[in-house]
Amino acid sequence: MDKTRLRCKELESKVMTAQEAAKIFENDMVVGASGFTPAGYPKAVPVELAKRAENGEEIGITLITGASVGPELDKELAVSGVMKRRFPYQTTNECRNAINEGNIKYQDMHLSHVPQWVKYGYFGEMDIAIVEAVAITEDGGIVPSTSIGNSATFIENANKVIVEINTSQPAELEGIHDIYIPQAPPNREPIPLVSVSQRIGTTYIPCDKEKIAAIVFTDISDSTRAVAPIDDTSRKMAQNLIKFLKEEVRLGRLPENLLPLQSGVGSVANAVLGGLCDSDFENLEVYSEVLQDSVLDLINANKVKFSSGTSITLSPHRLPGFYEEFDKYKDKMILRPQEISNHPEVARRLGVIAMNTAIEVDIYGNVNSTHIMGSRMMNGIGGSGDFTRNAYLSIFTTESIAKNGDISSIVPMVSHHDHTEHDVMVIVTEQGVADLRGLCPQERAEAIIENCAHPDYKEKLRDYFNRAKEGKFKHTPHLLKEALSWHEKFLETGNMK
Amino acid sequence: MDKTRLRCKELESKVMTAQEAAKIFENDMVVGASGFTPAGYPKAVPVELAKRAENGEEIGITLITGASVGPELDKELAVSGVMKRRFPYQTTNECRNAINEGNIKYQDMHLSHVPQWVKYGYFGEMDIAIVEAVAITEDGGIVPSTSIGNSATFIENANKVIVEINTSQPAELEGIHDIYIPQAPPNREPIPLVSVSQRIGTTYIPCDKEKIAAIVFTDISDSTRAVAPIDDTSRKMAQNLIKFLKEEVRLGRLPENLLPLQSGVGSVANAVLGGLCDSDFENLEVYSEVLQDSVLDLINANKVKFSSGTSITLSPHRLPGFYEEFDKYKDKMILRPQEISNHPEVARRLGVIAMNTAIEVDIYGNVNSTHIMGSRMMNGIGGSGDFTRNAYLSIFTTESIAKNGDISSIVPMVSHHDHTEHDVMVIVTEQGVADLRGLCPQERAEAIIENCAHPDYKEKLRDYFNRAKEGKFKHTPHLLKEALSWHEKFLETGNMK
Ligand SMILES: CC(C)(COP(=O)(O)OP(=O)(O)OC[C@H]1O[C@@H](n2cnc3c(N)ncnc32)[C@H](O)[C@@H]1OP(=O)(O)O)[C@@H](O)C(=O)NCCC(=O)NCCS
Ligand SMILES: CC(C)(COP(=O)(O)OP(=O)(O)OC[C@H]1O[C@@H](n2cnc3c(N)ncnc32)[C@H](O)[C@@H]1OP(=O)(O)O)[C@@H](O)C(=O)NCCC(=O)NCCS
Repeated sequence: MDKTRLRCKELESKVMTAQEAAKIFENDMVVGASGFTPAGYPKAVPVELAKRAENGEEIGITLITGASVGPELDKELAVSGVMKRRFPYQTTNECRNAINEGNIKYQDMHLSHVPQWVKYGYFGEMDIAIVEAVAITEDGGIVPSTSIGNSATFIENANKVIVEINTSQPAELEGIHDIYIPQAPPNREPIPLVSVSQRIGTTYIPCDKEKIAAIVFTDISDSTRAVAPIDDTSRKMAQNLIKFLKEEVRLGRLPENLLPLQSGVGSVANAVLGGLCDSDFENLEVYSEVLQDSVLDLINANKVKFSSGTSITLSPHRLPGFYEEFDKYKDKMILRPQEISNHPEVARRLGVIAMNTAIEVDIYGNVNSTHIMGSRMMNGIGGSGDFTRNAYLSIFTTESIAKNGDISSIVPMVSHHDHTEHDVMVIVTEQGVADLRGLCPQERAEAIIENCAHPDYKEKLRDYFNRAKEGKFKHTPHLLKEALSWHEKFLETGNMK
Repeated sequence: MDKTRLRCKELESKVMTAQEAAKIFENDMVVGASGFTPAGYPKAVPVELAKRAENGEEIGITLITGASVGPELDKELAVSGVMKRRFPYQTTNECRNAINEGNIKYQDMHLSHVPQWVKYGYFGEMDIAIVEAVAITEDGGIVPSTSIGNSATFIENANKVIVEINTSQPAELEGIHDIYIPQAPPNREPIPLVSVSQRIGTTYIPCDKEKIAAIVFTDISDSTRAVAPIDDTSRKMAQNLIKFLKEEVRLGRLPENLLPLQSGVGSVANAVLGGLCDSDFENLEVYSEVLQDSVLDLINANKVKFSSGTSITLSPHRLPGFYEEFDKYKDKMILRPQEISNHPEVARRLGVIAMNTAIEVDIYGNVNSTHIMGSRMMNGIGGSGDFTRNAYLSIFTTESIAKNGDISSIVPMVSHHDHTEHDVMVIVTEQGVADLRGLCPQERAEAIIENCAHPDYKEKLRDYFNRAKEGKFKHTPHLLKEALSWHEKFLETGNMK
């Protein structure tokens, strides 16, 4: 037992093996786990919990996390059948498949809603909070690792707390966190945060020592994934975006160093943000959920002076370098609870530039971020709604086609709606930019078709729009019979053309 | 000239007739007008402006308001062709028809976004702000009348200001307003509002006297409309809602006096809110946009201790009584700029219970508030999104059928999406209540079909859902070929059955 990691003497008696700790779980329990992207989630105990089910025990739980987590949770618990219900976001193949087969009940939620729902009692009583930590302080305060997510709220509201002290996570992470949790109405006060680099809380999560039921030492690393290398298409999207932002500065609508940048998750988002390395913007700030590889690149390139998120997720090959030079990054980064990183109050106050990725966009500017062909869940809406609606400038990027051109990502009507026309200001594809601000639906359709659609699909989109305009009601012209026919055709033939 | 109404000597020289003031408008100007619902909007000058166009002058403008306004603006300017572009909300037949005929370019916006867009320059330069007032103070401060809407932001940002002092609006309104406007990022501070009755600003809108181009005296009354009498269906909806709220209190998820109530606009919303008069709730608070008849009823019934909004719109027969007993109401009401009444920061902090009306709802809980059969604009989304997404509890009410049963308001897929599954917690119809919190899409469908749909359409909905479930992807089962077929059928045959 490493006493620099477990500094509270009183709690030494709570140390046990993962297998022992896994016995604390009972059938039908509601469990809150740390983790946001495959970073900072508990690993040792969930694997042991899955084994109990594999050995024939009847055990099913509701799992609530910050956002997606790694395979030790979302794969193991899905495959073993332990996971019955899942909130609010997931990305592993196993969990996704079980959801789409109807075997896991999943509610896809705005990430800022989750901690509120816990406090308001909407998930029922929380039986167990299980969180990864780099250390426990003298007073029993829990120091999170590479993400915070909802850990603080889970710890406050759960009946029992299990802590995994992960020695593969560097002890130096202590100090990077800033824990502040607002009270519930009617006693909620303004969140005092007015700048990206401001600290408003503590570096650990306060925890009632009585609630700690188990402490497990482990050294399993975060199972992060490499982001796809930046390809030509992403590079073009980034160039289009940068050109657009420069024009906004020129028109006096944005300051020279822009406003705090929020960037979505995934390969496209990483590439687009990374594209700023090649721009002449300086003194940028990042106020986002997830700090991906591109944030390090931007810090290295002296473009970003400060970044705030709720999770650090780097490609596996980037991690060692990050920890080696941690001193350089430490005073340019803060991790916050997702209730703060994603809070509408803060996003609107700071005036973030929200840049998220769409699966598909329709001619009127509605965005689908979650469902393939209307029914199949991909990941979830994540924090995209928290930021988009409250942004100074809300931007969605997508490649104009998918699956080698068999799919147009610009369609007459999206097959699922996550962000409506009211929330989407700008669409960027590798083809160009559609600035939708101030445009009526017909004008939006023209801008999106002409600037963003792939040449192979432009004529077909124009044809739909022109025929729709002949209808009686011309505000948002649609041919309801055909609005979803592109998706139908793809499902039948494997091609939208 | 009434010097108690125009108390600033320096500005006396700016008094002119409506006809003279109307000459200040030029072709292609961007105009911001006061008004939110048919309350507190300018009346005399717009009518004269319309006459200029009727007399053959080439004059077209972009009109931005708080929300809907009365016929002197939205009817006269639409019919005369002066209105070319319109933001963010409207409700007159004439304006609506011109939008649906494609003659007015309309962008339907979240009401809290409008003042930000003005400040950020997204509408371009604002040429004229025209606002109704009950008085101008000694220092040139403008005292609004029955609504505030965006007046403060328009006045701050416009090049010229025209004031209509309306002597039909009682001078006693002075003191009811609380003007506070946040700065733009990156210098925005927390909004200090932490309770419904708190004052954080001034009772008048500060205005640079140099900008005042005209002052016009008028006595044309607000052209308010009577809300429909409360019928059996609305009464049942209200009863269902009250039963649900009581259960939330019993379960300890809401305090005994609930949390601040936000109520949508229209007859249904008025009836539902009014239904609380017959409940045993007490010490309620209202934090809403529009204070309709039902708020007076609730104050009279000693149910509501304080109400905050951005507009007071009473049925014509209620107005005289309201002014007679104004003393009784005055210390139970505050009017705020819509940037504050609708601000996500405040709505989430106070934890409002948002109750808005849907046109239609689908089996997965998506809500259409704006478009009839996908293309025809009704009014707009208004503030429903501002409140719904940030609510402690978000509720949508709708009658289960429309047009005497030819339409089911519960459909397989809504024909337009304004509020997505992520934002809608509870659906209430006269049939019952579907509590969607924590349910996956399939469970939502069951709850909505069984509890909320009309008996005439239940079997048909079950049939759609059951067949959809046979598809390969079971997260959000849909038959894309049929998803919008109910609407198609209505358009073809006048009936969904
Ligand atoms: C939208 C999202 C899935 C894109 O992820 P990405 O890694 O950048 O994008 P990719 O281009 O690799 O696309 C992912 C998959 O969707 C598929 N896809 C993309 N567009 C598609 C379309 N229009 N139709 C069907 N499939 C499509 C891709 O082919 C790829 O499929 P694969 O996994 O079988 O290879 C991802 O950003 C996401 O989940 N967003 C929602 C949550 C969010 O915005 N979070 C940020 C909040 S701060
Ligand atoms: C939805 C809304 C139109 C309902 O208004 P209302 O006066 O309470 O409701 P009504 O039942 O009278 O319905 C209005 C019309 O829509 C029609 N309608 C209602 N449901 C319908 C449906 N499912 N399909 C087609 N038409 C429908 C009604 O028949 C009626 O038509 P009519 O004008 O030809 O008589 C109104 O609340 C609104 O505009 N909401 C959006 C903005 C908002 O929520 N603002 C509040 C923010 S704080």
